[in-house]
Amino acid sequence: MIVKQFFDEPLAQYGYAIISEGEMAVIDPARQEKPYLELAEATGSRIVASLLTHPHADFVSSYWAIAQKTGATVYASELIGLLVPKWTGLKDGDEIRIGKVRLKAYLTPGHSPDSLTYVLYDEEGREYAAFTGDWLFIGDVGRADLRSQAGNVQKQREEQARDMYHSLRRMFAILKDSTLVYPAHGAGTLCGKALKSFNASTIGAERLDNWAVLLAHQADEATFVEALVTGQPHIPKYFPHSVEVNRRGPLSYEAALQKVSVLGPLTEESAKRRDPHSTVVDARPAYLFRKGHLRGAINIPLGKSFNTWLGSLIAPTEPYYLIVSSPAAYETAIEQVLAIGYEENLKGVFIGIAYTEESGPELFPNVEVLRNDGRAYTVVDVRDPEEVGAGRLIPHAIPIRLAELRERLHEVPTGKPIAVHCAGGYRSAIGSSILLAAGRTPVYDIGEAITRL
Amino acid sequence: MIVKQFFDEPLAQYGYAIISEGEMAVIDPARQEKPYLELAEATGSRIVASLLTHPHADFVSSYWAIAQKTGATVYASELIGLLVPKWTGLKDGDEIRIGKVRLKAYLTPGHSPDSLTYVLYDEEGREYAAFTGDWLFIGDVGRADLRSQAGNVQKQREEQARDMYHSLRRMFAILKDSTLVYPAHGAGTLCGKALKSFNASTIGAERLDNWAVLLAHQADEATFVEALVTGQPHIPKYFPHSVEVNRRGPLSYEAALQKVSVLGPLTEESAKRRDPHSTVVDARPAYLFRKGHLRGAINIPLGKSFNTWLGSLIAPTEPYYLIVSSPAAYETAIEQVLAIGYEENLKGVFIGIAYTEESGPELFPNVEVLRNDGRAYTVVDVRDPEEVGAGRLIPHAIPIRLAELRERLHEVPTGKPIAVHCAGGYRSAIGSSILLAAGRTPVYDIGEAITRL
Repeated sequence: MIVKQFFDEPLAQYGYAIISEGEMAVIDPARQEKPYLELAEATGSRIVASLLTHPHADFVSSYWAIAQKTGATVYASELIGLLVPKWTGLKDGDEIRIGKVRLKAYLTPGHSPDSLTYVLYDEEGREYAAFTGDWLFIGDVGRADLRSQAGNVQKQREEQARDMYHSLRRMFAILKDSTLVYPAHGAGTLCGKALKSFNASTIGAERLDNWAVLLAHQADEATFVEALVTGQPHIPKYFPHSVEVNRRGPLSYEAALQKVSVLGPLTEESAKRRDPHSTVVDARPAYLFRKGHLRGAINIPLGKSFNTWLGSLIAPTEPYYLIVSSPAAYETAIEQVLAIGYEENLKGVFIGIAYTEESGPELFPNVEVLRNDGRAYTVVDVRDPEEVGAGRLIPHAIPIRLAELRERLHEVPTGKPIAVHCAGGYRSAIGSSILLAAGRTPVYDIGEAITRL
Repeated sequence: MIVKQFFDEPLAQYGYAIISEGEMAVIDPARQEKPYLELAEATGSRIVASLLTHPHADFVSSYWAIAQKTGATVYASELIGLLVPKWTGLKDGDEIRIGKVRLKAYLTPGHSPDSLTYVLYDEEGREYAAFTGDWLFIGDVGRADLRSQAGNVQKQREEQARDMYHSLRRMFAILKDSTLVYPAHGAGTLCGKALKSFNASTIGAERLDNWAVLLAHQADEATFVEALVTGQPHIPKYFPHSVEVNRRGPLSYEAALQKVSVLGPLTEESAKRRDPHSTVVDARPAYLFRKGHLRGAINIPLGKSFNTWLGSLIAPTEPYYLIVSSPAAYETAIEQVLAIGYEENLKGVFIGIAYTEESGPELFPNVEVLRNDGRAYTVVDVRDPEEVGAGRLIPHAIPIRLAELRERLHEVPTGKPIAVHCAGGYRSAIGSSILLAAGRTPVYDIGEAITRL
C-alpha cells in the first residue's frame, strides 16, 4: 500500500492517491487530473474510486473528470446532493475496498454538514491514516461559516460549530494516536485560521497541541462555538460558487482550457474593441502596472495567491478580461484561474501590452511624511481586521479589508489625496488600483515602504 | 504512543519526542531543551533516552543537556566518538525500549559514516516510523561531502556517496511502504539540495518520487555518486565546528546564554573601547545600516536565515561583536546564535545604536543604467553558481558566491564603482557591506531592484 500526497500551492490544497494491489483510489483531486492519471499509469494501477470528503468551496475538483476518464466510482456523503449522473452516497460506517486495503467513511460534520473523514486500514486491517478533508487540519479545524450564506447566518454557523465540537469529541475517542492525519489543506488556505505549515500529522500529535481539539475536550460547547466562529479570515466571493461547480461535476482540465480565448498582445485596436462592461484584471507586476495600464483596470499581480484575490474581488458572475505580461505568466495565471473555475466568465486573455490609457497609482514618495503630517492624506489600511486589531501602523488610517474595498468605496472620503497601505506591499498595490479604477485621484500606493514605518 | 515533532525554522531542523507508558525518548533535540522538558512535564513522562542520529554539522543539540537534567541515557552510533563522560554506543540492529514501544538502530551511512536510522515499532510490534536523520530527507538525501574536510576530499566524498547508494538499496528492501519517514531537516537546510517543504512522508511515497531513491534503484553506483556530489549548496564555515561541539556535549541553553555579554546601546565611547581586531556584525535592517554604521561592519540583516549567513561568513574561530536594533531583535538573534553554538566567540551584543562612523552602501539609483551602460560599473553577482548557471541577470557581472566573497575580494577589479546584486536583495545587502568593510568605494547595493531587470 502506498499513499501519495499531491499539493497545489496557491490554494494550499492536498489531494491523495491510495494504491494497493493494482487498484487506486483518489481523494479530493485538484482541478488538474493529469498528475493523478500519470501516477496510475506509472504504477500500473487502475483508478477504481474517486472520493470527495465534501463539496469544496475553495477549489474545483477533477473527481468527476477522473471518474469519466477511468470508469472509477464516485463516492461522497449521501447528504452532499451531487448533480453528476452517477455516484454512490455513503453514510457513516460505510466501507470501500481498494485492493487489499479498506476505507471507512465517518460522518464528521462541522466544516460542512456533509463532511466525511475516510479512515484507511492497511492490508492487515490496522488503522493507518485518516483523510480528514476540512474537518481536521494540522493545528486547526475547518471554519464553520462557509455553508451559511442565506437565512439566519449566525444560527447556521453556530450549529455547524456545535457539530464540530461533537465530531472532535467523537472521533478522538475512536481514532488511535498513531493514526496519520492527512488533511485537505495546509497553511495558507482560507478554510481555517490557524493551520501549521505541516503536510501530515498524527492523531496523537493533534491531541497534544491542536487548539480546537484541546478546547473541545476541556471546555463546554458554548465556549468552543464562540472560539471557532471568531477571527476567521474573509470569505472569498467565489467560495459558494465553487461548491455548486463541484456539485455539478466540473469539466476536465483540457475541456475547460479550450474555453479560454487567448487574444494576443493588447493593442489600441483590441483595447477599443473590448466589451466596456467587463472588468479588466491586470496580472502584471505592480511596477509595470504603475507605468501604464487600461483605464478601470484592477491590478492583481501574479503570485502565489493570485487566484485567491481574483476570486475574492471578482464575483463569480462578473465577466472579466485578464492581462498577463508573458507566455510564461499566462501558463501560471491560467492554471490558477482554472483551479477556482474562473474560466467561465473569462472573456479573454491579453498576453503582453502595447497600449496603455493611464498611469499610476504612484508609489508614495516619502513615508516619513505620514508620520509627521499624515492628516494631509486620506490613508486606507486594507489589512484584515485581526491585523489592524493587533496594531495600527498609521494612526488615522481608515481600515477597510481589501476583500471588501470594491463594495465600501463610499467610506473613503473625498477631497484629499489617498494613500493605501497593507503589511508588505502586495495588497496595497491591488487596493490602490481599485481606488484609481473607481476614478479616485490622486491615489498613492505606500507599498513595501510600510515595513519601514 | 505519541510521536511529537519539533521544528526550528531558521535551520529547518526537526527534533522528535516519542512517548509511551510514561516514558519518553528524544531524538536530535534542538539547542533549546525547554520545549522537550515541557512536553515531558505536560504529559507526566520521564525522559529515559536521548538519541542522536549522527553528530550534526548544522546545529548544536541539547542531547547532552537533556541527559544531564533528566538522567536519560545518551545513545548514538558506536562509531561517533562522543566525548561526553557517559553514553551508549549502538551498532546495527541494537534496540532500545521506551515504555511499550521499541526503537531499532540501523546503520545508514552516506551523509556521515556514523549515521543511524531509528525505526520505531509500536505497542503491537508493528513497524511505524523511521527517524532518518540526514540519511533520508523528503524528496532528497543528505549530502555526502560534509565530513570530508581534510586529506583527499574528492575520494572521501565519493566513498560517502557510495555508502549512500548502498544504504538506500538496503533500507528500501527492509522498510515497509506504510512506514512514516521523519527526517532531521525540511526544505531550507544546507544539508541537502532538493528537499521538499514537507514535514513528514512515508517510505512508499519516497520510493515513488525521491530522485535519489529512484536513481539508487535504476542506475549504477558510479552514476549515483556523480549525481549526489553535484550541485550541492555551499558548506558554511561553522559546519565542521558544530560536529565537534556536538561531540563534546554542548552546554545547556541557559548556561550558554549566561556567557553572552549584553553591552547596551552602542555609543561613541563603547565604540571606541571595542576590540579593534574583532569583526562587527550589524544585524539591523539594511535600510538602517545604509543610513549609518561602524566602519568595517558587515551587515547581516536579522531574518529567517540570519544564523546560516552568520555561520557562513564568520569563521567559528573569529571573535565578533553583534549589533541589533531592539530588545526584541536581540531575543531573535541570540536564539539563532546559540542554535549554531556561536556564543563562544561573541565578544558582546550592542542593542540599539547612537553612534555611527560611516554610511552606505547606497542603493543603486537606476538599474536601467546597468542594462544600457553597464560597463561603467564593476558588477558582482553574489548568487550561487547553480543560480548563475540558470541565467545571468547582468551579462558582464562577475560571479562570486556570497559565502566566498570575503576570501575572494581580490577578484573584484579596482578602478570602477562597484554594484552588487543577488536574486532578491538580501544577499546583496550583505555582499555590498562586505566590500565596503574591505575599504572598497563607492559600493552600491542593487537590492530588490534586480527583480525588475
